[in-house]
Formats: sequence, structure tokens, C-alpha cells
Amino acid sequence: SRSLNLAVIPGDGIGQEVVAQGLKVLSAVLPQDVKLETKEYDFGAKRYHATGETLTEADLDALKRHDAILLGAIGDPSVPSGVLERGFLLKLRFAFDHHVNLRPSKLLPGVATPLAGQPEIDFVVVREGTEGPYTGNGGTIRKGTEHEVATEVSVNTAFGVERVVRDAFARAQARPRKKLTLVHKNNVLTFAGHLWTNIFNKVAEEFPEVTTDYIHVDAATIYLVTDPARFDVIVTDNLFGDIITDLAAAVSGGIGVAASGNINPSGDFPSMFEPVHGSAPDIAGQGKADPSATVLSVALLLRHLGYEAEAAAIEEAVSADLAERVGKPARSTAEIGDALAVRVAG
Amino acid sequence: SRSLNLAVIPGDGIGQEVVAQGLKVLSAVLPQDVKLETKEYDFGAKRYHATGETLTEADLDALKRHDAILLGAIGDPSVPSGVLERGFLLKLRFAFDHHVNLRPSKLLPGVATPLAGQPEIDFVVVREGTEGPYTGNGGTIRKGTEHEVATEVSVNTAFGVERVVRDAFARAQARPRKKLTLVHKNNVLTFAGHLWTNIFNKVAEEFPEVTTDYIHVDAATIYLVTDPARFDVIVTDNLFGDIITDLAAAVSGGIGVAASGNINPSGDFPSMFEPVHGSAPDIAGQGKADPSATVLSVALLLRHLGYEAEAAAIEEAVSADLAERVGKPARSTAEIGDALAVRVAG
Ligand SMILES: CC(C)[C@H](C(=O)O)[C@@H](O)C(=O)O
Ligand SMILES: CC(C)[C@H](C(=O)O)[C@@H](O)C(=O)O
Repeated sequence: SRSLNLAVIPGDGIGQEVVAQGLKVLSAVLPQDVKLETKEYDFGAKRYHATGETLTEADLDALKRHDAILLGAIGDPSVPSGVLERGFLLKLRFAFDHHVNLRPSKLLPGVATPLAGQPEIDFVVVREGTEGPYTGNGGTIRKGTEHEVATEVSVNTAFGVERVVRDAFARAQARPRKKLTLVHKNNVLTFAGHLWTNIFNKVAEEFPEVTTDYIHVDAATIYLVTDPARFDVIVTDNLFGDIITDLAAAVSGGIGVAASGNINPSGDFPSMFEPVHGSAPDIAGQGKADPSATVLSVALLLRHLGYEAEAAAIEEAVSADLAERVGKPARSTAEIGDALAVRVAG
Repeated sequence: SRSLNLAVIPGDGIGQEVVAQGLKVLSAVLPQDVKLETKEYDFGAKRYHATGETLTEADLDALKRHDAILLGAIGDPSVPSGVLERGFLLKLRFAFDHHVNLRPSKLLPGVATPLAGQPEIDFVVVREGTEGPYTGNGGTIRKGTEHEVATEVSVNTAFGVERVVRDAFARAQARPRKKLTLVHKNNVLTFAGHLWTNIFNKVAEEFPEVTTDYIHVDAATIYLVTDPARFDVIVTDNLFGDIITDLAAAVSGGIGVAASGNINPSGDFPSMFEPVHGSAPDIAGQGKADPSATVLSVALLLRHLGYEAEAAAIEEAVSADLAERVGKPARSTAEIGDALAVRVAG
């Protein structure tokens, strides 16, 4: 019999509520013969305040033993900006070499979008997850004085860029439209830009069926609101990916339905799946959060582990649930989770 | 009698066409007693191909003698990405210390937006123009090999951040809503982020009437499409400003109407005014380009030089012209310029 050994990190704010629904739907969709084991970890603001710890070596050792990680959200206004982000979330992404940060955007029928005319939106962003301006390189001199200088160093390696570009080409190749767009700013960030562009063009030769395209990040934000249908797969750097996937989420139904996977394709370390949204302390504990983004992240988790039919069942359930919401009163986090669990079981 | 001594750089592609209309409207709006002198400069792709030059020391000396610079657009697919951007546009912004890159966004009545429900949009982005990831710091080792490493260094100084933050506070103070939002990514780019945030909070004490706000750049792209009315003045770093002002232009009528000023508030060097759009080689020479963005940049130029009434007259003319377009056949670049010239003269 098979088993799925999951690390569960509810985290802060609405993380607790949405992860509970993710697990509910996971249990409902998993085949009988799969033994689901979950272990909960208490990372986040509470533990930081109690112990000063965000993520220790011992924690990493423990997390390493799981097949995958499900994360709700980390972050609280009581913790200075950057402490949990750098000390937990980014530390984990870097330690487990999550270099493929996968963020699909699909505007489902009936779902509200801020864009006029309900455009067709169905693309995937492959965001690099372990390099670029996210490495923490840089520093500060003369802090707090009028002569302070602060630097941030974006580090880009042929090794790091090529593996994520190749992953994105393979994903584009597997989709009906077979189109891949590189998003960067190679007219200004010429060092990193040339590295990205040259590797992109080189790997393209291995994928003759994939149509390629290049767009500057500033122009990409224009197309995301005026012509999102032009995108199929996008590959981009860590920071540009952060920015455009929030915009992509906004136009394709909002962060209530935006899922993501922090993937280590080699399998050397477990991959981590999380909604794109944050901990939303303003609505925490009120049952108002939409668990759909977390449930869709569970679908990405299942697909990553080879449970394709189960992943598809979840995606269909969420799609049907969203289509049915139109004109109905709002439901609670748990009610949505219950409805999705019923759908995937049925 | 007064005089206005203008450097005119039509540049590449549609730059030629739109600048001609900008000058037409400028001549029409200027009071009789102001002597307008213009000198045209041939920067851009043609000169680069003929001479290998983008912008020489002698060019900078010549440009320095003008009261202001009007730029169309620089860039052509025949020139490798980065050559003209770094060699001309950024070189000029840095040489003339254009640290306030001013980009207003206003959705005028009747103007099409990709957003549903015609939201209220009226804000100004103050983008830092001489620091951040735009300095050209960084480099490449082992170029073209599988061990290539490329870095980009974002440089942020207390001096550079404080002057632009103070400029933004003063602009917010002068507007009815008196609200200033700092956009950064201080939870990840903690070195630069803390510098920006601390200086922002420090300068805020000098402007007790201004309401302040902080938003991460990724979240800012969400608000720009879901709730743009929340913004009044935004201050942000060079790269974030580049990205969000393209999005801001897209939602507030498109890059056909987005104006910008590269301002040196000290007056030590002439400021430069340019449409946010590029050279659009695909439609160049066809009379299809909308000159409104350039004409509105002329308004920013006039306001910068103290011609407030003339700037307002141009803005009213463009606003009226845009409102009248609805349902009418498209006009040529020159026809729009003519109509605007008539309006400001009348
Ligand atoms: C919380 C933050 C560190 C994170 C990021 O910038 O990657 C978030 O915005 C995301 O997109 O997952
Ligand atoms: C052409 C390019 C160098 C420039 C920039 O990145 O600043 C442009 O996008 C802009 O916004 O003026």
C-alpha cells in the first residue's frame, strides 16, 4: 500500500483556517489504499516570540523526511518586516533548493475579475526560486547616518538559470499552445539580462516546437491587463516573478484562488505548496478566508507526487464551486472546504 | 521679454512624429512675449549606426545649455538591447541627476481602460531616477560558459533616497488628499528596504498633515487593478517605479496618454520630458501614434519652468479631446496635434 507523509505548516493568521480545509479535501480525494500521515509544525510568529527561532537546522532535518510540505501563510504585524520572510519562508525555499516556483493563473467561468470583458486567461508562471535579488547578498554601511549606503545584489548563475529555463520549456512543450515567454529587463539589467536571454535562446534550440517570445517586465504588466490571452508559459527571475504573479492572481480571480508550488524537481528535498496570499491578520479567525487557493495548492502537491487524477478532481471541484457562487451569499471558510470535500469524494 | 530655449530629441520610430506635435502645441500655447528657441539633436539608432556614438561628453555640454529637453523615444530593433538604453537614456538621466522621475496617472472621462467599472484614478508616481538597480553596478564572470555568474547591484544612499522622499512628501502636501504611499519590498530586500522605510518615516515627521502608507511592490500591482483610487502620491525606487508606472499607464488610458518628467529639482541641469511609451517601430511613419503622451509631457515641462496656466491649458485640451473621441473614427497623429493646437490657442 502507498503512503503520503506530509509536513503541515499552518502558520499565522488565516493560515490555520485554510490549511484545515486543504487537509479536509486532501483526505476526501485520496484513494483508500494511500495511507496519509501528517505532522504539524508550529513555525510562525507565535514560535518566534516564544523562542526567537524561525527555522533551525533541526527543523530542516525533520522537514526533510516528509514527501511534501503544505504551508498556509507566515507573517504577522507583531514581527518586524523581513524576519519571518527571510528567516523562515526564504530560508526554506533556499535550503530545499525550490528553484521552480510554479504559479498557474486561470480565470474560471463565472469568477469575477477586475478586467472588463472577461478575457481568456490560462497561463503558468515559472518563477526562479533560489537566485536573483532574493539571495540576501548585499549590505549596509554607516547605518542610520546621512551617509548610509545599502546594496542589494542580484546573483544569477548559468547553472541556476538554465535549469529553470529548461523546466519551463518542458512545461510549454507539454501544453497545447506550446508558447514560452521570457520576462526580464535585459535593456537595463544587462549583466543578468544577457545571461537569461542567451541561455533562453540556447535552450530554445532543444525545443523546436515551442514558440518563444521576450517581453520586458514593465511591458509584461501592461499585457497582463490588456491582453493576458497572449501568455501560455512565462519564465522569469525571482523578483519579477513575485511581482507579476500577484498581478496575474489579481486579474484571474484574485488571491483567494491563486495557488503555488515551490518545487525541487530533483526530489532531493521535499517540495512545498502554499497559497500565494499572505496571513491576512485583518480577517484571521473569522472564517472569512477563501480556502480555494490552499485547496488548489493541494492539487499541485498531488500532481507533483504523481496523483494526476486526484489533482484534476480537485481542480474540477474548485472550478464547479466557483461557478456556483455567482449571486449566492458568501459562505464561511469551513463551508467552502466542506463543499469541496463532498465534490471530490462524490 | 522671456525666452524658452529647448533641446529637442525626436529619436527613433514614432518619436519623430509625436515630438512634431508636441512642438506644434507648445508654440500655440506659449504667450506672445516668450521667445521659443529650439535646437534639434539627432540621438538614436541612426546616429549610433553611422558613428558608434550614443551620447558624448560634447553632447552633454551642448544639452546642458538648454532650459529643458523634450524627448520623443529612443530605441530600434537594429540596435542590441541595452546599448541605447544604457548609452543614451540612462546616461543622460544620470549625468543630469534627474532624480525625480515624475509620472502622473489620471483616468480622464470617456477614456477606455481595461478595468471594469471605470474606477477613479488620479495619482502621481515619484520614481527615484538615479539609484537602485539602474546604476549599472554589477558584472559578469566566465561569460558564455556553464559557470557564468552575472550580478546586478542595487545601490541606495541616504542622500539619494531622502531627497526623492522629501520631494514626494512636498507633492503630497500640495494635493487635496495629502496621502503618500511608499512602495518597496522591504520584507525581502531588507538592506535597501530598511533604508527606504526609515528615511520615509523620518521625513514623515516633517509633514504631519500627510497621511502615509506602505505597500509591498507585489501587492501594489494588485491594488492598481482592484482599487487604484487608494493612491494619491506614490514614492518608490527606480526599478519598482519603472514597473508600476507601465501598469499605471495601462489602467489609466494606456501608454498613448502617459507623460513623464525626468526632473532635476535643483535646476543645476536641464530636466527632460518624454512620453512613457517607446519608439514603437511597428507603427512608425504611419501617422498612427497618439501624440497625447508627448503633448502632456510638454505640459509637465511648462509647469516645471513656471508656466502653470499654459500647462493647465494643455491638460484641459487633451482632456477635452479625449472625451470627444468616443465613437469617432481614428485620427492621424498630425490631426490630433492640430486639434490640440487649436484648442490651446482658442
Ligand atoms: C512573503 C514574501 C517573502 C514572498 C516572496 O516575496 O516571495 C511572497 O510575496 C510570495 O510571493 O511568496
Ligand atoms: C527604456 C528604458 C531604459 C526605460 C526605463 O527602464 O527606465 C523605460 O522603460 C522607461 O520607463 O522610461
